Formats: sequence, structure tokens, C-alpha cells
Amino acid sequence: MHEIKQISSVQNALVKKILLLKEKSRERKKTGLFIIEGQREIELALKGGYEIETVLFQKDLIDLNATYTLFENSKLTPDYIEVTKDVYQKLAYRQTTEGVLAIAKSKPTLLEELELKNKNPLILIAEAPEKPGNIGALLRTADAANLDAVIIANPKTDLYNPNIIRSSVGCVFTNKVAMGSTSEVIAFLKAQNINIYCAALSASENYIKTDFNPASAIVVGTEADGLSQEWLENSTQNIIIPMQGEIDSMNVSVSAAIVIFEAKRQRNFE
Amino acid sequence: MHEIKQISSVQNALVKKILLLKEKSRERKKTGLFIIEGQREIELALKGGYEIETVLFQKDLIDLNATYTLFENSKLTPDYIEVTKDVYQKLAYRQTTEGVLAIAKSKPTLLEELELKNKNPLILIAEAPEKPGNIGALLRTADAANLDAVIIANPKTDLYNPNIIRSSVGCVFTNKVAMGSTSEVIAFLKAQNINIYCAALSASENYIKTDFNPASAIVVGTEADGLSQEWLENSTQNIIIPMQGEIDSMNVSVSAAIVIFEAKRQRNFE
Repeated sequence: MHEIKQISSVQNALVKKILLLKEKSRERKKTGLFIIEGQREIELALKGGYEIETVLFQKDLIDLNATYTLFENSKLTPDYIEVTKDVYQKLAYRQTTEGVLAIAKSKPTLLEELELKNKNPLILIAEAPEKPGNIGALLRTADAANLDAVIIANPKTDLYNPNIIRSSVGCVFTNKVAMGSTSEVIAFLKAQNINIYCAALSASENYIKTDFNPASAIVVGTEADGLSQEWLENSTQNIIIPMQGEIDSMNVSVSAAIVIFEAKRQRNFE
Repeated sequence: MHEIKQISSVQNALVKKILLLKEKSRERKKTGLFIIEGQREIELALKGGYEIETVLFQKDLIDLNATYTLFENSKLTPDYIEVTKDVYQKLAYRQTTEGVLAIAKSKPTLLEELELKNKNPLILIAEAPEKPGNIGALLRTADAANLDAVIIANPKTDLYNPNIIRSSVGCVFTNKVAMGSTSEVIAFLKAQNINIYCAALSASENYIKTDFNPASAIVVGTEADGLSQEWLENSTQNIIIPMQGEIDSMNVSVSAAIVIFEAKRQRNFE
């Protein structure tokens, strides 16, 4: 049996804390906590080794037995709190919501804690990505390609932005993700002898001519500004996807996926 | 010199007509007209041979001389209408707007009018895509790959949905686009001896094993439901992108781009 607390007031202190965690990157960093919404996302976070302290639910929306089962497998014993419809609607981020959310402990995204088990890793690096939706799409592709890591250089937000969690459909929990300044990331790559392939317009070779079998980092910038000079100066080779249209503007997550899967093809998907 | 009319009331009949064109697919179909927002988009539509009848602008936001220049090259002589800030804000679809929009004539998207000049065309087909944003991303990729055509089977909206125009960054005007029922599209492909490669989970071969040098149509369904049985029954070969992650859920525009650029690679980008 699980003890269940109840919250019925939107003025409740925990409700206010959750709203802060949802809205403020600073609050997430300060407390080391963040919010996960949805049963599937909670399952993926548990699978990814995240610690979950508290589960909040709206009784008529969710079958809590399924949630209990998730936690039985994880050995965690969170607090369960039933909230009213009013409270839940204030807390939920999604429009079509499932009636369950959790408070979880964030993991460090420090470069020095990033372990690469593969001798010739394949890594995706995104510099200063602006839109959480783009980060989410990159993480989905990285999951499908089973990349060794995703590194965000000069991040504009923390990893646990609710829009990143949502747009990644939970892939934020299944990838190894690290963050650091561009200088730190370049130093990390050089120390590990990982080739740096910058997606760029100048001095670039067709990406299909690049040999991605050695340890490789594919580095993409923003759609608006591309990569910083620092990346270009430290590039092993700039690469480009030949474009032949009128506009030649692909979404950054699309471009990254094309190059990642060319690397996968060269590696025989091994 | 250009004669300039003025509209200052949001109750004006033309303003109401534009709002209907913006919001109602049915109105666009009935009148054969649609709305283009933004200088760059107007330029691309003119380049794509679209007829533009009317230009509306908010004087303090736009340099109209640049707009005049676009039309001088096109031989079209639209009506120019200056609108007040209130009116413009009511008409504009984008949050960060440029102060200019136009009423244009739509083009037919009939399969029987789709001419394929390439002997071995490479075509993208999307069945019943739900999100305008996904259609926009597919059109961007199709433009960059200079595909011979994009066909939407069983469309859920018309092509001139403002969200498609916006998310395609104008690529809706640079691609050859046709629409039809799935049965019509399959009949069209068979009549032209175009191989049908359906992205599917069952009875599928790795897409890198497929020879895309002959006339090829790459067919994608929705993220939720995949392709209909009718497509699968008429497939030359089902294809799959091997996925090796926990979730294996890529965005449909990302998956399509990976296969399209594998075909481009096999064709040496020619």
C-alpha cells in the first residue's frame, strides 16, 4: 500500500515550487530538481537512472497502478500526492496531458564526467542551439542512431527545460548528454583524439567524402549564424551537404541527421 | 509612380476577406486565392510564377521600394494598399512581421498537370501529413535536394495554409507540388513506371541497400500511424532506417531527409 497525500490549493507551497521549476532555468540549477510530465517519460527517466522523489497525479486521468509498477522495478519509493483538477491544470505543461508528473533530480552534464566506452565514438555537438524544439529533434535522432554522446556547447538553456523534455519525447533521458563552453568542448575532443567535422559553408568538402570511421564529432551551429570562428579554427575538416535548390535552407536537425546517418552507413550501422 | 489606396478600418470588407483566406481552407479553395506574408516569400512566389493581385503594407515597417522592384521584374501590376498598424496586426500571421503581405492566386496541384522532366525522377510522397510544420520541413528538404516533385496523398489541408507557407520558409513556391488521393497517386506512379519505396516497419530492407538510381518515389506516412495498407500493397520494396536506440522515434521530416540524401548520394548529387 502507498500512502497518498493530497493537495487541493493552487496556493500550496509545493505547487508554487513546481511552477518555479517548470518556468525558471535558474531555479532548476539552484535546486538540482526538475519536472517530468507523462508516464512514458517517467519510465524512460527511471530507466536512465534518474532519481524521482515525488509523483503528483490527477486521479481520474491516470491509472496509478501502472505508475506503481514502474517504481517497483526501480527500488525508488517516491511520495505520492493526489492533486485536484485545478491544481493539475496549473502544473501541467502539455495541452493533452496524462495526469501524472514527477519531481526528479537532475544529473550533472559535466564534460569531465562523460565516459565514452566506444574506442571510435560518434558524437553530435550542437553549438548554442536556440530552440528547445531543435534540441529535442537532435536528441531523437541521436537516440535512433545510438550515438555515443550529445554535447551542447555554449548552451542557452539547461537540459531540463520542459520544452526540451517534451520535444525529445523522452530522448533527453536515453542519451548521454554533456554541456560546456565551446573552448572546453574543443579541449575535451582534442584530449581524446576525436576528429572535429564542422558543418560550414566555406572550405568544406562534401560530407559523403569524409571518412567517419575514426572517432568523429559532427558539429552543427544555428540556422541563423552557423558555427563560431573558434569551432572553424579547430576543425579537422569542414563538411557541407551539397544543396541544389532555390532556397537551400534545411532545418538544423534535418542536416545533422543526414550527416549522422551517412556516418552510420559508413560504419555499417555497427 | 504607384497609386496607393488606404484602409484604416478593421471592419473593411477586404480586411474581412483576407482574414477568411488566412483562416479557412474552404475559402481559399472557393476563391482560388491565398495570402503570402513577407518580402522574401513574395519574391519566391513571383519567381515561382505566382500571380499577385494585391499588396498590403504598413508604411513604417517596410521599404516599399524594394517591393516595387520585385514587381518591376515580374511585369505584374498589383494594387498597393497602405493599412494602419491596427489593421496590419489583425491581418499578420507571424509574431515578428515585416509589414507586407499579398493576395495571390493559387496554382492547381493536380496530378495530371505534374510534368516530370527528368527521365529518372526522384520524388517524395507524404501520405496524410497532419502537421503543417512537418509539411514545411519536408518542402525545405525537397528544395535543398532539388527533388523532381513532392506529392501529398490524401491531404488534410490545402497547400496554402499559412502555417505551411511559413514553416516551409517559402519552399512551397519553389517545389513542384501535387496532391491527390492515395489511389490516384499510386495510379500516377505506376503509369510512369516509378518505383515505390514505402518507409515501413515490416518486410523492409535497409534503405542503404535500395538502388535509388531508377525512377523512385520515397513514400512516408505519419509518425503516429505510418502508411496505409494501400501503399504497402503497392510497394516495390518497403524500406527502413535501422534504429538502435531506446526510443527509435525520429521526426518524419528527419527520416525522409535521411532516405532522400542517401538517394542523392547514390546519384552523385546529379
